[in-house]
Amino acid sequence: MPDAVTAALIVIGDEILSGRTKDVNIGTIADFCTDLGIELSEVRVVPDIEDEIVAAVNAVRGRYTYVFTTGGIGPTHDDITADAVAKAFGVALPINPEARAMLEQRWKDTGTEVNEARLRMARIPEGASLIVNSVSAAPGFRIGNVHVKAGVPKIMQAMLEAIAPTLEGGAKVKSVSIGCRVGEGTIGSAFGRIQDEFPDVKMGSYPRMGSTTVMTELVLRSHDEDRLSLAVERVRAMVAAAHANAGLAETVVAY
Amino acid sequence: MPDAVTAALIVIGDEILSGRTKDVNIGTIADFCTDLGIELSEVRVVPDIEDEIVAAVNAVRGRYTYVFTTGGIGPTHDDITADAVAKAFGVALPINPEARAMLEQRWKDTGTEVNEARLRMARIPEGASLIVNSVSAAPGFRIGNVHVKAGVPKIMQAMLEAIAPTLEGGAKVKSVSIGCRVGEGTIGSAFGRIQDEFPDVKMGSYPRMGSTTVMTELVLRSHDEDRLSLAVERVRAMVAAAHANAGLAETVVAY
Repeated sequence: MPDAVTAALIVIGDEILSGRTKDVNIGTIADFCTDLGIELSEVRVVPDIEDEIVAAVNAVRGRYTYVFTTGGIGPTHDDITADAVAKAFGVALPINPEARAMLEQRWKDTGTEVNEARLRMARIPEGASLIVNSVSAAPGFRIGNVHVKAGVPKIMQAMLEAIAPTLEGGAKVKSVSIGCRVGEGTIGSAFGRIQDEFPDVKMGSYPRMGSTTVMTELVLRSHDEDRLSLAVERVRAMVAAAHANAGLAETVVAY
Repeated sequence: MPDAVTAALIVIGDEILSGRTKDVNIGTIADFCTDLGIELSEVRVVPDIEDEIVAAVNAVRGRYTYVFTTGGIGPTHDDITADAVAKAFGVALPINPEARAMLEQRWKDTGTEVNEARLRMARIPEGASLIVNSVSAAPGFRIGNVHVKAGVPKIMQAMLEAIAPTLEGGAKVKSVSIGCRVGEGTIGSAFGRIQDEFPDVKMGSYPRMGSTTVMTELVLRSHDEDRLSLAVERVRAMVAAAHANAGLAETVVAY
Protein backbone atom coordinates (compact mmCIF):
# COMPACT_ATOMS: atom_id res chain seq x y z
CA MET A 1 0.00 0.00 0.00
CA PRO A 2 1.39 3.42 -0.92
CA ASP A 3 1.86 6.10 1.71
CA ALA A 4 -1.59 7.39 2.46
CA VAL A 5 -2.45 11.04 1.93
CA THR A 6 -4.72 11.94 4.82
CA ALA A 7 -6.87 14.82 6.01
CA ALA A 8 -8.84 16.08 8.98
CA LEU A 9 -11.79 18.44 8.87
CA ILE A 10 -12.70 20.91 11.61
CA VAL A 11 -16.23 22.26 11.36
CA ILE A 12 -16.46 25.48 13.39
CA GLY A 13 -19.75 26.85 14.61
CA ASP A 14 -22.21 26.97 17.52
CA GLU A 15 -25.05 26.76 14.99
CA ILE A 16 -24.09 23.19 14.03
CA LEU A 17 -23.84 22.08 17.68
CA SER A 18 -27.17 23.68 18.63
CA GLY A 19 -28.92 22.02 15.69
CA ARG A 20 -29.96 25.37 14.22
CA THR A 21 -27.96 24.65 11.05
CA LYS A 22 -27.67 21.14 9.66
CA ASP A 23 -24.15 20.60 8.34
CA VAL A 24 -23.75 19.48 4.75
CA ASN A 25 -20.06 20.34 4.35
CA ILE A 26 -18.82 17.11 5.97
CA GLY A 27 -20.39 15.03 3.19
CA THR A 28 -19.17 17.38 0.45
CA ILE A 29 -15.60 17.37 1.74
CA ALA A 30 -15.68 13.59 2.27
CA ASP A 31 -16.65 13.10 -1.39
CA PHE A 32 -14.05 15.65 -2.50
CA CYS A 33 -11.29 13.84 -0.59
CA THR A 34 -12.31 10.41 -1.86
CA ASP A 35 -12.28 11.71 -5.45
CA LEU A 36 -8.74 13.01 -5.02
CA GLY A 37 -7.39 9.91 -3.28
CA ILE A 38 -7.17 11.75 0.05
CA GLU A 39 -8.25 9.73 3.06
CA LEU A 40 -10.45 11.84 5.32
CA SER A 41 -9.43 10.37 8.67
CA GLU A 42 -11.18 12.51 11.26
CA VAL A 43 -13.78 15.24 11.60
CA ARG A 44 -14.33 17.47 14.61
CA VAL A 45 -17.16 19.91 15.16
CA VAL A 46 -16.18 22.62 17.65
CA PRO A 47 -17.95 25.70 19.04
CA ASP A 48 -17.11 29.38 18.47
CA ILE A 49 -14.66 29.38 21.37
CA GLU A 50 -11.12 30.41 20.52
CA ASP A 51 -9.33 27.96 22.83
CA GLU A 52 -11.37 25.06 21.46
CA ILE A 53 -10.53 25.94 17.86
CA VAL A 54 -6.83 26.41 18.69
CA ALA A 55 -6.76 23.05 20.49
CA ALA A 56 -8.49 21.24 17.61
CA VAL A 57 -6.18 22.75 14.96
CA ASN A 58 -3.08 21.88 16.95
CA ALA A 59 -4.34 18.38 17.73
CA VAL A 60 -4.70 17.44 14.07
CA ARG A 61 -2.29 19.51 11.99
CA GLY A 62 0.77 17.42 12.85
CA ARG A 63 -1.12 14.19 12.37
CA TYR A 64 -2.54 14.45 8.86
CA THR A 65 -1.32 15.61 5.45
CA TYR A 66 -4.03 18.26 5.20
CA VAL A 67 -6.40 20.02 7.54
CA PHE A 68 -9.56 21.74 6.31
CA THR A 69 -11.71 24.07 8.38
CA THR A 70 -15.16 25.45 7.58
CA GLY A 71 -16.93 28.40 9.17
CA GLY A 72 -16.18 31.51 11.17
CA ILE A 73 -14.55 33.78 8.59
CA GLY A 74 -17.27 36.42 8.18
CA PRO A 75 -17.43 40.04 9.39
CA THR A 76 -19.09 39.64 12.80
CA HIS A 77 -17.73 39.20 16.33
CA ASP A 78 -18.55 35.48 16.34
CA ASP A 79 -16.24 34.91 13.35
CA ILE A 80 -13.02 34.03 15.14
CA THR A 81 -11.45 31.33 12.98
CA ALA A 82 -8.67 33.59 11.63
CA ASP A 83 -7.81 34.71 15.18
CA ALA A 84 -7.71 31.12 16.40
CA VAL A 85 -5.63 29.80 13.49
CA ALA A 86 -3.14 32.67 13.84
CA LYS A 87 -2.88 31.81 17.53
CA ALA A 88 -2.43 28.09 16.78
CA PHE A 89 0.51 28.97 14.52
CA GLY A 90 1.82 31.73 16.83
CA VAL A 91 1.71 34.41 14.13
CA ALA A 92 0.18 37.88 13.85
CA LEU A 93 -3.12 38.64 12.12
CA PRO A 94 -2.66 41.85 10.14
CA ILE A 95 -4.85 43.24 7.37
CA ASN A 96 -3.60 41.49 4.22
CA PRO A 97 -3.23 43.98 1.32
CA GLU A 98 -4.16 41.40 -1.33
CA ALA A 99 -7.27 40.34 0.58
CA ARG A 100 -8.19 43.96 1.16
CA ALA A 101 -7.83 44.69 -2.58
CA MET A 102 -10.09 41.74 -3.48
CA LEU A 103 -12.72 42.94 -1.02
CA GLU A 104 -12.48 46.60 -2.02
CA GLN A 105 -12.91 45.71 -5.70
CA ARG A 106 -16.04 43.78 -4.79
CA TRP A 107 -17.37 46.54 -2.53
CA LYS A 108 -16.76 49.08 -5.29
CA ASP A 109 -18.66 46.91 -7.81
CA THR A 110 -21.60 46.47 -5.44
CA GLY A 111 -21.62 49.94 -3.88
CA THR A 112 -20.95 48.49 -0.45
CA GLU A 113 -19.61 50.67 2.36
CA VAL A 114 -16.13 49.86 3.69
CA ASN A 115 -16.28 49.60 7.47
CA GLU A 116 -14.49 48.09 10.41
CA ALA A 117 -16.62 44.93 10.48
CA ARG A 118 -16.11 44.21 6.79
CA LEU A 119 -12.36 44.83 7.11
CA ARG A 120 -12.20 41.99 9.64
CA MET A 121 -12.48 39.72 6.61
CA ALA A 122 -9.15 41.04 5.27
CA ARG A 123 -7.28 39.95 8.42
CA ILE A 124 -5.12 37.01 7.36
CA PRO A 125 -2.46 35.23 9.46
CA GLU A 126 1.07 36.27 8.59
CA GLY A 127 2.65 33.86 6.12
CA ALA A 128 -0.67 32.52 4.81
CA SER A 129 -1.65 32.46 1.14
CA LEU A 130 -5.17 33.32 0.06
CA ILE A 131 -7.92 30.99 -1.17
CA VAL A 132 -10.01 32.75 -3.79
CA ASN A 133 -13.73 33.11 -3.11
CA SER A 134 -15.49 33.41 -6.47
CA VAL A 135 -18.90 33.80 -4.81
CA SER A 136 -18.58 36.68 -2.36
CA ALA A 137 -14.91 37.80 -2.55
CA ALA A 138 -13.94 37.41 1.13
CA PRO A 139 -11.04 34.96 0.79
CA GLY A 140 -10.11 31.89 2.75
CA PHE A 141 -6.47 31.14 3.40
CA ARG A 142 -3.89 28.42 3.71
CA ILE A 143 -1.20 28.42 6.37
CA GLY A 144 1.08 25.39 6.63
CA ASN A 145 -1.16 22.45 5.83
CA VAL A 146 -4.31 24.13 7.20
CA HIS A 147 -6.91 25.34 4.70
CA VAL A 148 -9.44 27.77 6.14
CA LYS A 149 -12.74 27.99 4.26
CA ALA A 150 -16.16 29.60 4.66
CA GLY A 151 -19.08 27.74 6.21
CA VAL A 152 -21.78 28.75 3.72
CA PRO A 153 -21.95 25.61 1.52
CA LYS A 154 -21.93 27.42 -1.82
CA ILE A 155 -18.85 29.46 -0.87
CA MET A 156 -17.18 26.46 0.75
CA GLN A 157 -17.61 24.50 -2.50
CA ALA A 158 -16.15 27.33 -4.58
CA MET A 159 -13.13 27.38 -2.26
CA LEU A 160 -12.73 23.59 -2.54
CA GLU A 161 -12.60 23.98 -6.32
CA ALA A 162 -10.02 26.74 -5.89
CA ILE A 163 -7.69 24.60 -3.78
CA ALA A 164 -8.12 21.29 -5.64
CA PRO A 165 -5.23 21.91 -8.06
CA THR A 166 -2.90 22.69 -5.13
CA LEU A 167 -3.51 19.40 -3.32
CA GLU A 168 -1.53 16.27 -3.96
CA GLY A 169 -3.85 13.29 -3.93
CA GLY A 170 -2.81 9.77 -3.04
CA ALA A 171 -3.44 6.54 -4.86
CA LYS A 172 -7.16 6.45 -5.49
CA VAL A 173 -9.09 3.90 -3.52
CA LYS A 174 -11.14 1.64 -5.78
CA SER A 175 -14.49 0.65 -4.42
CA VAL A 176 -17.04 -2.04 -5.34
CA SER A 177 -20.45 -2.50 -3.72
CA ILE A 178 -22.25 -5.83 -3.70
CA GLY A 179 -25.98 -6.01 -3.09
CA CYS A 180 -27.04 -8.82 -0.80
CA ARG A 181 -30.64 -9.92 -0.41
CA VAL A 182 -30.25 -11.42 3.06
CA GLY A 183 -29.66 -9.63 6.36
CA GLU A 184 -26.12 -8.89 7.44
CA GLY A 185 -26.41 -11.28 10.34
CA THR A 186 -26.80 -14.16 7.87
CA ILE A 187 -23.51 -13.53 6.07
CA GLY A 188 -21.60 -11.87 8.91
CA SER A 189 -19.35 -14.79 9.85
CA ALA A 190 -18.47 -15.82 6.27
CA PHE A 191 -17.86 -12.18 5.35
CA GLY A 192 -15.57 -11.75 8.36
CA ARG A 193 -13.53 -14.78 7.27
CA ILE A 194 -13.03 -13.28 3.81
CA GLN A 195 -11.97 -10.00 5.46
CA ASP A 196 -9.37 -11.95 7.47
CA GLU A 197 -7.92 -13.34 4.23
CA PHE A 198 -7.75 -9.90 2.61
CA PRO A 199 -6.32 -7.48 5.17
CA ASP A 200 -5.42 -5.15 2.25
CA VAL A 201 -9.08 -4.83 1.19
CA LYS A 202 -11.32 -2.92 3.60
CA MET A 203 -14.75 -4.52 3.82
CA GLY A 204 -17.83 -2.86 5.27
CA SER A 205 -21.37 -4.09 5.71
CA TYR A 206 -24.32 -1.68 5.71
CA PRO A 207 -27.91 -2.67 6.40
CA ARG A 208 -30.50 -1.05 4.15
CA MET A 209 -33.61 -0.68 6.21
CA GLY A 210 -36.97 -0.89 4.52
CA SER A 211 -35.59 -2.28 1.26
CA THR A 212 -36.94 -5.61 0.05
CA THR A 213 -34.46 -6.09 -2.79
CA VAL A 214 -31.09 -5.20 -1.31
CA MET A 215 -31.08 -5.80 2.45
CA THR A 216 -27.35 -5.49 2.99
CA GLU A 217 -24.79 -3.58 1.01
CA LEU A 218 -21.26 -4.93 1.18
CA VAL A 219 -18.59 -2.40 0.25
CA LEU A 220 -15.04 -3.44 -0.63
CA ARG A 221 -12.29 -0.83 -0.93
CA SER A 222 -8.62 -1.13 -1.82
CA HIS A 223 -5.72 0.66 -3.45
CA ASP A 224 -4.85 -2.61 -5.22
CA GLU A 225 -7.18 -3.37 -8.10
CA ASP A 226 -6.09 -6.99 -8.52
CA ARG A 227 -6.59 -7.85 -4.87
CA LEU A 228 -9.91 -6.01 -4.93
CA SER A 229 -11.10 -8.09 -7.92
CA LEU A 230 -10.09 -11.31 -6.17
CA ALA A 231 -11.91 -10.29 -3.00
CA VAL A 232 -15.00 -9.23 -4.95
CA GLU A 233 -15.15 -12.66 -6.60
CA ARG A 234 -14.96 -14.34 -3.20
CA VAL A 235 -17.69 -12.14 -1.74
CA ARG A 236 -19.90 -12.60 -4.83
CA ALA A 237 -19.67 -16.36 -4.46
CA MET A 238 -20.42 -16.13 -0.75
CA VAL A 239 -23.49 -13.98 -1.40
CA ALA A 240 -24.67 -16.29 -4.22
CA ALA A 241 -24.46 -19.23 -1.80
CA ALA A 242 -26.39 -17.26 0.85
CA HIS A 243 -29.06 -16.39 -1.71
CA ALA A 244 -29.36 -20.01 -2.85
CA ASN A 245 -29.52 -21.14 0.76
CA ALA A 246 -32.39 -18.70 1.41
CA GLY A 247 -34.25 -19.99 -1.67
CA LEU A 248 -33.55 -16.79 -3.65
CA ALA A 249 -32.14 -16.58 -7.17
CA GLU A 250 -28.37 -16.79 -6.92
CA THR A 251 -27.86 -13.61 -8.97
CA VAL A 252 -25.52 -11.16 -7.28
CA VAL A 253 -25.18 -7.59 -8.42
CA ALA A 254 -21.87 -5.76 -8.02
CA TYR A 255 -21.70 -2.04 -8.77
CA MET B 1 -25.62 30.98 34.76
CA PRO B 2 -26.42 27.51 36.17
CA ASP B 3 -23.91 24.68 35.82
CA ALA B 4 -24.07 23.61 32.22
CA VAL B 5 -25.04 20.06 31.32
CA THR B 6 -22.82 19.16 28.38
CA ALA B 7 -22.37 16.37 25.86
CA ALA B 8 -20.03 15.10 23.18
CA LEU B 9 -21.02 12.95 20.23
CA ILE B 10 -18.73 10.42 18.56
CA VAL B 11 -19.88 9.31 15.12
CA ILE B 12 -18.20 6.02 14.24
CA GLY B 13 -17.87 4.79 10.69
CA ASP B 14 -15.65 4.70 7.60
CA GLU B 15 -18.75 5.24 5.45
CA ILE B 16 -19.21 8.77 6.81
CA LEU B 17 -15.54 9.68 6.26
CA SER B 18 -15.50 8.27 2.71
CA GLY B 19 -18.66 10.19 1.79
CA ARG B 20 -20.56 7.01 0.95
CA THR B 21 -23.10 7.75 3.69
CA LYS B 22 -24.14 11.32 4.48
CA ASP B 23 -24.56 11.67 8.23
CA VAL B 24 -27.88 12.94 9.55
CA ASN B 25 -27.46 11.86 13.17
CA ILE B 26 -25.38 14.91 14.17
CA GLY B 27 -28.30 17.24 13.41
CA THR B 28 -30.82 14.96 15.13
CA ILE B 29 -28.73 14.67 18.28
CA ALA B 30 -27.98 18.41 18.28
CA ASP B 31 -31.73 19.15 18.23
CA PHE B 32 -32.36 16.49 20.89
CA CYS B 33 -29.75 18.00 23.21
CA THR B 34 -30.99 21.56 22.71
CA ASP B 35 -34.55 20.45 23.51
CA LEU B 36 -33.40 18.89 26.78
CA GLY B 37 -31.17 21.80 27.82
CA ILE B 38 -28.01 19.77 27.16
CA GLU B 39 -25.22 21.71 25.50
CA LEU B 40 -23.69 19.62 22.72
CA SER B 41 -20.10 20.84 22.98
CA GLU B 42 -18.14 18.70 20.56
CA VAL B 43 -18.61 16.13 17.81
CA ARG B 44 -15.96 13.79 16.44
CA VAL B 45 -16.27 11.52 13.43
CA VAL B 46 -13.81 8.62 13.65
CA PRO B 47 -13.07 5.60 11.43
CA ASP B 48 -13.69 1.90 12.19
CA ILE B 49 -10.30 1.59 13.88
CA GLU B 50 -10.36 0.35 17.46
CA ASP B 51 -7.54 2.56 18.76
CA GLU B 52 -9.15 5.66 17.28
CA ILE B 53 -12.50 4.91 18.90
CA VAL B 54 -10.87 4.15 22.26
CA ALA B 55 -8.88 7.40 22.09
CA ALA B 56 -11.94 9.47 21.20
CA VAL B 57 -14.07 7.94 23.97
CA ASN B 58 -11.35 8.50 26.56
CA ALA B 59 -10.66 12.04 25.33
CA VAL B 60 -14.23 13.18 25.91
CA ARG B 61 -15.83 11.07 28.62
CA GLY B 62 -14.14 12.90 31.49
CA ARG B 63 -14.81 16.28 29.97
CA TYR B 64 -18.57 16.30 29.41
CA THR B 65 -21.67 15.24 31.34
CA TYR B 66 -22.73 12.80 28.62
CA VAL B 67 -21.14 11.07 25.67
CA PHE B 68 -23.18 9.64 22.81
CA THR B 69 -21.84 7.36 20.11
CA THR B 70 -23.50 6.27 16.89
CA GLY B 71 -22.58 3.37 14.63
CA GLY B 72 -20.69 0.10 14.73
CA ILE B 73 -22.96 -2.13 16.81
CA GLY B 74 -24.18 -4.55 14.12
CA PRO B 75 -23.29 -8.21 13.49
CA THR B 76 -20.36 -7.89 11.08
CA HIS B 77 -16.58 -7.74 11.57
CA ASP B 78 -16.50 -3.98 10.98
CA ASP B 79 -18.82 -3.40 13.96
CA ILE B 80 -16.27 -2.84 16.70
CA THR B 81 -17.81 -0.15 18.88
CA ALA B 82 -18.63 -2.50 21.77
CA ASP B 83 -15.07 -3.87 21.70
CA ALA B 84 -13.61 -0.35 21.70
CA VAL B 85 -15.84 0.97 24.48
CA ALA B 86 -15.12 -2.09 26.66
CA LYS B 87 -11.41 -1.45 26.08
CA ALA B 88 -11.79 2.27 26.89
CA PHE B 89 -13.35 1.31 30.25
CA GLY B 90 -11.00 -1.64 30.82
CA VAL B 91 -13.81 -4.17 31.20
CA ALA B 92 -14.68 -7.51 29.61
CA LEU B 93 -17.18 -7.94 26.77
CA PRO B 94 -19.21 -11.05 27.53
CA ILE B 95 -22.51 -12.15 26.00
CA ASN B 96 -25.14 -10.34 28.05
CA PRO B 97 -28.03 -12.68 28.97
CA GLU B 98 -30.65 -9.90 28.84
CA ALA B 99 -29.46 -8.73 25.42
CA ARG B 100 -29.38 -12.31 24.19
CA ALA B 101 -32.94 -12.86 25.41
CA MET B 102 -34.14 -9.72 23.58
CA LEU B 103 -32.48 -10.88 20.38
CA GLU B 104 -33.64 -14.50 20.66
CA GLN B 105 -37.23 -13.37 21.17
CA ARG B 106 -36.96 -11.29 18.02
CA TRP B 107 -35.28 -14.06 16.05
CA LYS B 108 -37.98 -16.50 17.16
CA ASP B 109 -40.72 -14.07 16.04
CA THR B 110 -39.10 -13.56 12.65
CA GLY B 111 -37.82 -17.10 12.04
CA THR B 112 -34.23 -15.87 11.98
CA GLU B 113 -31.35 -18.28 12.49
CA VAL B 114 -29.18 -17.77 15.60
CA ASN B 115 -25.55 -17.71 14.54
CA GLU B 116 -22.16 -16.48 15.66
CA ALA B 117 -22.38 -13.19 13.74
CA ARG B 118 -25.78 -12.32 15.17
CA LEU B 119 -24.65 -13.22 18.68
CA ARG B 120 -21.95 -10.55 18.37
CA MET B 121 -24.81 -8.09 18.96
CA ALA B 122 -25.40 -9.56 22.43
CA ARG B 123 -21.85 -8.77 23.55
CA ILE B 124 -22.16 -5.91 26.06
CA PRO B 125 -19.38 -4.45 28.23
CA GLU B 126 -19.46 -5.68 31.81
CA GLY B 127 -21.31 -3.24 34.05
CA ALA B 128 -23.27 -1.62 31.22
CA SER B 129 -27.06 -1.29 31.15
CA LEU B 130 -29.01 -1.87 27.95
CA ILE B 131 -30.67 0.71 25.71
CA VAL B 132 -33.82 -0.76 24.22
CA ASN B 133 -34.07 -0.89 20.41
CA SER B 134 -37.76 -0.90 19.50
CA VAL B 135 -36.98 -1.14 15.78
CA SER B 136 -34.72 -4.16 15.36
CA ALA B 137 -34.13 -5.53 18.91
CA ALA B 138 -30.30 -5.39 18.98
CA PRO B 139 -29.77 -3.13 22.00
CA GLY B 140 -27.43 -0.25 22.58
CA PHE B 141 -25.92 0.22 26.01
CA ARG B 142 -24.82 2.73 28.58
CA ILE B 143 -21.62 2.43 30.56
CA GLY B 144 -20.61 5.27 32.86
CA ASN B 145 -21.71 8.39 31.02
CA VAL B 146 -21.24 6.86 27.57
CA HIS B 147 -24.38 5.97 25.57
CA VAL B 148 -23.73 3.64 22.64
CA LYS B 149 -26.32 3.74 19.89
CA ALA B 150 -26.87 2.35 16.40
CA GLY B 151 -25.92 4.33 13.29
CA VAL B 152 -29.05 3.64 11.22
CA PRO B 153 -31.00 6.90 11.75
CA LYS B 154 -34.35 5.26 12.45
CA ILE B 155 -32.84 2.97 15.10
CA MET B 156 -30.69 5.77 16.50
CA GLN B 157 -33.80 7.92 16.97
CA ALA B 158 -35.66 5.10 18.72
CA MET B 159 -32.71 4.72 21.09
CA LEU B 160 -32.64 8.48 21.77
CA GLU B 161 -36.29 8.28 22.78
CA ALA B 162 -35.45 5.33 25.01
CA ILE B 163 -32.72 7.19 26.89
CA ALA B 164 -34.40 10.63 27.08
CA PRO B 165 -36.11 9.95 30.44
CA THR B 166 -32.78 8.85 31.96
CA LEU B 167 -30.94 12.08 31.09
CA GLU B 168 -30.89 15.10 33.33
CA GLY B 169 -31.19 18.23 31.22
CA GLY B 170 -29.85 21.61 32.22
CA ALA B 171 -31.57 24.97 32.22
CA LYS B 172 -33.04 25.34 28.77
CA VAL B 173 -31.41 27.92 26.57
CA LYS B 174 -33.93 30.44 25.28
CA SER B 175 -33.33 31.59 21.73
CA VAL B 176 -34.63 34.50 19.63
CA SER B 177 -33.85 35.10 15.95
CA ILE B 178 -34.01 38.54 14.39
CA GLY B 179 -34.28 38.93 10.63
CA CYS B 180 -32.13 41.69 9.23
CA ARG B 181 -32.53 43.04 5.70
CA VAL B 182 -28.98 44.30 5.31
CA GLY B 183 -25.76 42.31 5.00
CA GLU B 184 -23.92 41.22 8.14
CA GLY B 185 -21.01 43.49 7.29
CA THR B 186 -23.29 46.50 7.66
CA ILE B 187 -24.32 45.75 11.23
CA GLY B 188 -21.21 43.82 12.32
CA SER B 189 -19.57 46.51 14.44
CA ALA B 190 -22.74 47.67 16.21
CA PHE B 191 -23.76 44.05 16.81
CA GLY B 192 -20.33 43.31 18.29
CA ARG B 193 -20.70 46.24 20.71
CA ILE B 194 -24.03 44.90 21.95
CA GLN B 195 -22.41 41.47 22.39
CA ASP B 196 -19.71 43.12 24.54
CA GLU B 197 -22.40 44.58 26.80
CA PHE B 198 -24.17 41.23 27.16
CA PRO B 199 -21.52 38.57 27.80
CA ASP B 200 -24.30 36.35 29.23
CA VAL B 201 -26.22 36.34 25.93
CA LYS B 202 -24.56 34.45 23.06
CA MET B 203 -25.05 36.28 19.79
CA GLY B 204 -24.46 34.76 16.36
CA SER B 205 -24.80 36.21 12.88
CA TYR B 206 -25.66 34.03 9.91
CA PRO B 207 -25.79 35.22 6.31
CA ARG B 208 -28.69 33.92 4.27
CA MET B 209 -27.45 33.65 0.73
CA GLY B 210 -29.87 34.21 -2.11
CA SER B 211 -32.61 35.67 0.08
CA THR B 212 -33.86 39.16 -0.76
CA THR B 213 -36.01 39.60 2.35
CA VAL B 214 -33.82 38.40 5.22
CA MET B 215 -30.14 38.78 4.36
CA THR B 216 -28.76 38.18 7.83
CA GLU B 217 -30.21 36.21 10.68
CA LEU B 218 -29.12 37.29 14.13
CA VAL B 219 -29.56 34.63 16.80
CA LEU B 220 -29.49 35.48 20.51
CA ARG B 221 -29.33 32.71 23.11
CA SER B 222 -29.30 32.79 26.89
CA HIS B 223 -30.32 30.90 30.01
CA ASP B 224 -31.60 34.19 31.46
CA GLU B 225 -34.89 35.25 29.93
CA ASP B 226 -34.77 38.83 31.28
CA ARG B 227 -31.30 39.51 29.97
CA LEU B 228 -32.27 37.92 26.67
CA SER B 229 -35.29 40.25 26.35
CA LEU B 230 -33.13 43.28 27.09
CA ALA B 231 -30.55 42.24 24.50
CA VAL B 232 -33.26 41.49 21.93
CA GLU B 233 -34.65 45.00 22.35
CA ARG B 234 -31.18 46.48 21.82
CA VAL B 235 -30.59 44.40 18.70
CA ARG B 236 -34.06 45.18 17.31
CA ALA B 237 -33.37 48.89 17.68
CA MET B 238 -29.97 48.51 16.03
CA VAL B 239 -31.49 46.62 13.09
CA ALA B 240 -34.34 49.17 12.75
CA ALA B 241 -31.72 51.93 12.54
CA ALA B 242 -29.76 49.98 9.92
CA HIS B 243 -32.95 49.42 7.90
CA ALA B 244 -33.85 53.13 8.08
CA ASN B 245 -30.30 54.05 7.11
CA ALA B 246 -30.56 51.80 4.05
CA GLY B 247 -33.89 53.38 3.06
CA LEU B 248 -35.85 50.25 4.05
CA ALA B 249 -38.95 50.15 6.23
CA GLU B 250 -37.82 50.08 9.84
CA THR B 251 -39.92 46.99 10.65
CA VAL B 252 -37.89 44.28 12.38
CA VAL B 253 -39.16 40.76 12.80
CA ALA B 254 -38.11 38.68 15.78
CA TYR B 255 -39.08 35.01 15.93
